[in-house]
This record gives sequence, C-alpha cells and structure tokens, in this order.
Amino acid sequence: MTDPIRLLGAPTSAVGARAAGVHPVRTPTGEITGGSLTPLQDLTGTITPADLHFERHHAGVPLIDPARHTLLVHGLVDRPLMLSLDDLKRFPQVTRVHFVECSGNGEPGWRAGIFGAPNPGLTPQQIAGLTGNSEWTGVPLRILLEEAGAKRDATWFLAEGGDACLLARSIPIQKARDDALVVWSQNGEPLRPEQGFPMRLLLPGWEGSTNVKWLRRLELGTRPWMTRWETATYTDPLADGTARQFAFEMDAKSLITSPAFPETITRGWWPLTGLAWSGRGRIARVEVSTDAGTTWQDAVLNLPVRSKAHTRFTHMWEWAGQETILLSRATDETGYVQPTRADLIRVRGAGTLYHWNPVYGWKVAANGRVFFHGAT
Amino acid sequence: MTDPIRLLGAPTSAVGARAAGVHPVRTPTGEITGGSLTPLQDLTGTITPADLHFERHHAGVPLIDPARHTLLVHGLVDRPLMLSLDDLKRFPQVTRVHFVECSGNGEPGWRAGIFGAPNPGLTPQQIAGLTGNSEWTGVPLRILLEEAGAKRDATWFLAEGGDACLLARSIPIQKARDDALVVWSQNGEPLRPEQGFPMRLLLPGWEGSTNVKWLRRLELGTRPWMTRWETATYTDPLADGTARQFAFEMDAKSLITSPAFPETITRGWWPLTGLAWSGRGRIARVEVSTDAGTTWQDAVLNLPVRSKAHTRFTHMWEWAGQETILLSRATDETGYVQPTRADLIRVRGAGTLYHWNPVYGWKVAANGRVFFHGAT
Repeated sequence: MTDPIRLLGAPTSAVGARAAGVHPVRTPTGEITGGSLTPLQDLTGTITPADLHFERHHAGVPLIDPARHTLLVHGLVDRPLMLSLDDLKRFPQVTRVHFVECSGNGEPGWRAGIFGAPNPGLTPQQIAGLTGNSEWTGVPLRILLEEAGAKRDATWFLAEGGDACLLARSIPIQKARDDALVVWSQNGEPLRPEQGFPMRLLLPGWEGSTNVKWLRRLELGTRPWMTRWETATYTDPLADGTARQFAFEMDAKSLITSPAFPETITRGWWPLTGLAWSGRGRIARVEVSTDAGTTWQDAVLNLPVRSKAHTRFTHMWEWAGQETILLSRATDETGYVQPTRADLIRVRGAGTLYHWNPVYGWKVAANGRVFFHGAT
Repeated sequence: MTDPIRLLGAPTSAVGARAAGVHPVRTPTGEITGGSLTPLQDLTGTITPADLHFERHHAGVPLIDPARHTLLVHGLVDRPLMLSLDDLKRFPQVTRVHFVECSGNGEPGWRAGIFGAPNPGLTPQQIAGLTGNSEWTGVPLRILLEEAGAKRDATWFLAEGGDACLLARSIPIQKARDDALVVWSQNGEPLRPEQGFPMRLLLPGWEGSTNVKWLRRLELGTRPWMTRWETATYTDPLADGTARQFAFEMDAKSLITSPAFPETITRGWWPLTGLAWSGRGRIARVEVSTDAGTTWQDAVLNLPVRSKAHTRFTHMWEWAGQETILLSRATDETGYVQPTRADLIRVRGAGTLYHWNPVYGWKVAANGRVFFHGAT
C-alpha cells in the first residue's frame, strides 16, 4: 500500500461509505418474520446508527408508499382525524433521544445460565442487541389527541401498525399525556423502512412492541383490546402459572460492551465501557466490579445523562494478568437496582419470558481472552 | 401498488437502507480537491447522519490502513509518543456532541447579496451546508499531552493531517487544555474516510480546517508555524487591506431550514424550523420574524441545548396568504448576536472571505412559493 501522503485521494461523494475493513452488521437470521441485532460491541458513544438499529417484526418489512399512507385517529374522540405524513409534519414537532428495546432482549444470555452452562462465545450483540438509541423527531401524541378532541372517558388507546399482521397494542392514555410521540424521523433523516417508515409510535422507555411501526390507526376506548400481541405473546410467565400482562416499562439494565467476547486483552490500562438504560427515567449510577463482585466502584457516566436513553459508562481498569470476572450494575433515578439472576428468578421464576435484565459477567482468562460468564 | 397489509414484507437485513424515494445527497462537485454539502433541508433534529456530513478537503480523501497509521506527539515534550489507533483506544474516552463548520460556509448566500441580486434559487444546503453536528468519541487531548509530558513553555501546537497536502494548522495550547479531543468515532461508529478515518482532531466550536483529519502529528512549540493553511488561505481580508488571522471561533449563526426554497406552502399552520449554533458556547435565544423584521418572537429551542452544537428551533406560524420574509437571529450565551449584513460589512468589509454569519431571509410569495432572499 502506497503511503497515503504520496497519493492524491478520492473525490467527494454524494453519500459516504464506511471505511474499508469496517463492516458492522446486524446478523439477520434470513427469516422474513424475525429479528436482527444491534452490534453493540462495534459501537461507541450513545447513538445507534440507523442502519444498524435492531429489527424485530412479525410479518416482514412492509413496502409503504408514503403518499398513500394515512394515520386514522378515531374512537372516543369528538373529531376523527385522517392524517397524511404531510399533515403530521404541520403540527408542532420535538426531537428527543430515547432507546427502543425489545422486551425479548437478552434471551440467549439468560437461558444459557438457567438451562445449562453459559455459552462463553456470546457477544454483546447476542446478549443484548435488541436495543438501539436514537434521536427521534415527531409530534407529541398529546397534541394529536387534543386536535381530535379525545373524550374524557377514554382511558386506553389501540395502536395498529400497517404491516401484514396488523400488529396492535393497547396503551393506557396517560402515556399519551406524558411523553408519547408519533415520529417520522430517526437520527436526522426519515425513518428507515424497518424502523416504521413513514411513521411510528414512540413510547419512551416502554417495551419495543408497543412502539408500533408503520402506524396507521389510533383508536381511543375504555379498556384494553386484548390483542394477540398482549395475550398469546409479550406476556411474562410467572412461577405460579399466571403471567404478567402489560409490563410496559423496561427495567434498568447495563452491559459492559468492552472488554467482551471475542476480545483478547493484554496487561495494562483498559477503558472498561458499556451502556446502561432504564425505562423509568435517568440512570443514576453504574457500578462495576473487576474482581468478580468482591468490590464495586462507580463508573463515570458520560454527560448529559438523558432520561430513558442509553447512557455510556467508562471505568479505567489496570489488568495485572489475573483471572477475573467483570460485572456492571445499573441503578436508575427511581432507586431501582439491576437485579442478580437469583433475585430475578425469585420474583419471576426460571421459566419467565421477556424482560430479562440480570447483572451479566465477562470472564477474563489468564491469557487475556474474554468470555461471556452468564447472568450472575 | 398492493396494499402493504395484504403482502408479507421484506426480510431482516445486515445493514439497513433508506426508503425508496428517500435520497438525500451531498451534491459533490466531482473534483478531487473540493467539498460537498450537508442537505440541511432534508434533515430534522440535530444529528447529521455520518454519510451526509459535509466534506472539505484539499488533496482528496486518503486511503489509510488503520493498522499502519500512527499519531506522533513530539516537540516540547518530555516523552515523545507514537500512538496507534489501538493505543489511543486504551486512554480514558469521552463522548461529546459538537458541530464542525467550515469557515467558508455561506459563500453563495453572502456573495449573492453583495455583488448583485440574491439568487432566489439557493437551498439551505447551498447557503449553509458546510456544517454538520455529530456525537464524537475520543480522548481528551489534555490527557495525551499529560502522557507526553508537555513542557511548560509550550504555548502552541501544530496539528498535521495524513492527506497528500499534509494540511497543518497551528493551535494555541490552551484549546488542548479546554476541550480538544482526538476522536476515532462519529455517531457511534468508526469515522468515515472523508471525516478523517482513522482519527481526527476535534476542536469544539473552532473553524473546520483546524479539526485536522487523518491526524498523524502533533508538535508542541512556542509560536505558530505560519503554514500555508493559516497564511495564504483561511485568513479573513478586511476593508483596510489587512487580514484577520487565527479567527478560530465560529460566530453564532442560524438558518431557517423549512419553509425554504424549493418548498411551496399553503395557508394555515407551519412549524417554521431551523438550526442555530455558536462556537462560543450554548445558544441562548433564537428570534424569528415572519413579517420581514417588523416584529420578532422567541422560537422554541429543543432541549437540552448543548454547548458548541447545533440547536434545533421551531416556531409555529399561521400563514394567511400574504407576501412576507421569514428571518431568524441567534444569540449565544456570551451575548453575541448574529449580525445583519450591514453590521458584518461595517466590521469586515464587503470583500471579506470566510466567517459569514449574517441574518438570512426567505421570501414567501403570495402563491406560497419560497425563495432565498439573501443576507439582510
């Protein structure tokens, strides 16, 4: 390779491309109805590039003509609305940074520790890649409900997507009054198709499936609709045979994203870094342990810490060559502390589905190789 | 087109693509040594997608092998450093949101109003597209200078890039102590080649050319080096025949990005929106006028307002069909107010180069068409 200072470089371009050798990918399964995972170990900071933000959908990514797409607001309202994308863009708009996380995030990491030995070869992407953090722009749902004249007795609304399964979730109307948005933009540009183009619901801090993509209908009513997506699925089995339903808020979680499998470290200083987030508000504290939980230190949080958003933490650590386990534990502003695996099992049972957020560990071997240690 | 709810959609993908019909571009000139502009009118919020962030370079985009690239820190230091990208990543790291703006941003809009009638067909991209705003991750330069043992008498440093012209700028060392970073990441991912891959200098709020890309050398000394890039160019001619040199800080600026040319509006409510930024700190206020400057109102600033970063402003405006001119005027936290064209000419002369930041206007015709009205 010629020394680059001896060669005239490449011209300007209409749209940039990643550098040669930089190929972060979401590792899709190939199925139409499936998911793909954010490559957390390849990312820094807090913003997830839109083209690497995880996917989860149940009938593929619909091809929608934005000029023909409409959002119907009806039910218990004085004035039903039928809004085009252009109509929506004429309302007051706000920009907010929030994570969206699938409630099924973390299954491989959880199961590995419950039904056998942890799989040491799991990456941050495989353990927690069903989350992404973006700058979203759109209209506060509160304003659309005012425009429609929501009736006082409306206590729930149904949000229906425009994909082939018409995914629909029932949402307490208080969330619309608090901070729900109907967004058309992610990280400065129009939503990508797999993120809901041309518009999606954004419910900051609430489980991903309620952030209905390809949003086409909002119906106001007085009780939940008991759709397939809140009965047959997206409910959390408990040890006593019942199931938690409408467990909307994502609990506080953290994960060290480096060092992590498949990295190999050498002796000396490392910036131990990762992400923490909570559906209840701001992250107040992230503690890390570099001695398998014997002692804990507060990590440095990158400022400003934003509510219901990924928060980057860093802790400088000098490795002397010993075997050890690296851990992180998040606390949010409500005082909620990321639980141990034992705590989570005690409350929800070992066979629970969704909403796994135990403290995770990375084992550092004496030769510097780093492996997933499972939930601890 | 079949109703999308009747068709199974597309499968998940490794890397996402923009929706059909969504094609924002930087409109490059085709030259190797040139620039390309951020499509401001196509963007919302504050983050500029990395692949649409403006470019400006003087010897093309070099093709650099990150495994062979090094950063030399030498001159008035106790311990010269030669750092690889991997070395750099072992230092404490921070993430910050900042704009980078070329000091030549705004030439078409400025000249149009000085040397003839304004060109009504200029877009926000053409008027102010040499700016972008990103989340950058890297090492505080202060820490690298501590590691090298910067000598007390070092007052300036030279930053040299690894492109074929070895672009180099002299920087007061105080900036390293304040907030300078050596970054390797933009918006969560490794820098793109045209943004300085594998590493660049980031001097928050300072003119773009000082944020040296493809950074390969930092030399500490006691006076500026008087490189070509701070003598023959990037200096500001004044009316008296002298020139301003080392005008590092970018002055406060704002621009309405919608409505703007080539939009056509209809009667009723519009969210008048745009961007404001200042190299001196936070934007304190953006005033807008919808009646050609007769009256001004405070726009709503999207929170949190970040220092030396693009700030999104919005103002709801009801258009009744009259001809008018839309204006915006930024004030930063130091009290600096975006000047009128007359103010700028009084201080710098009509023939000045670089650092143009006058109040700009958009003319709304009675038929709803919007045209650039020039600096006012």
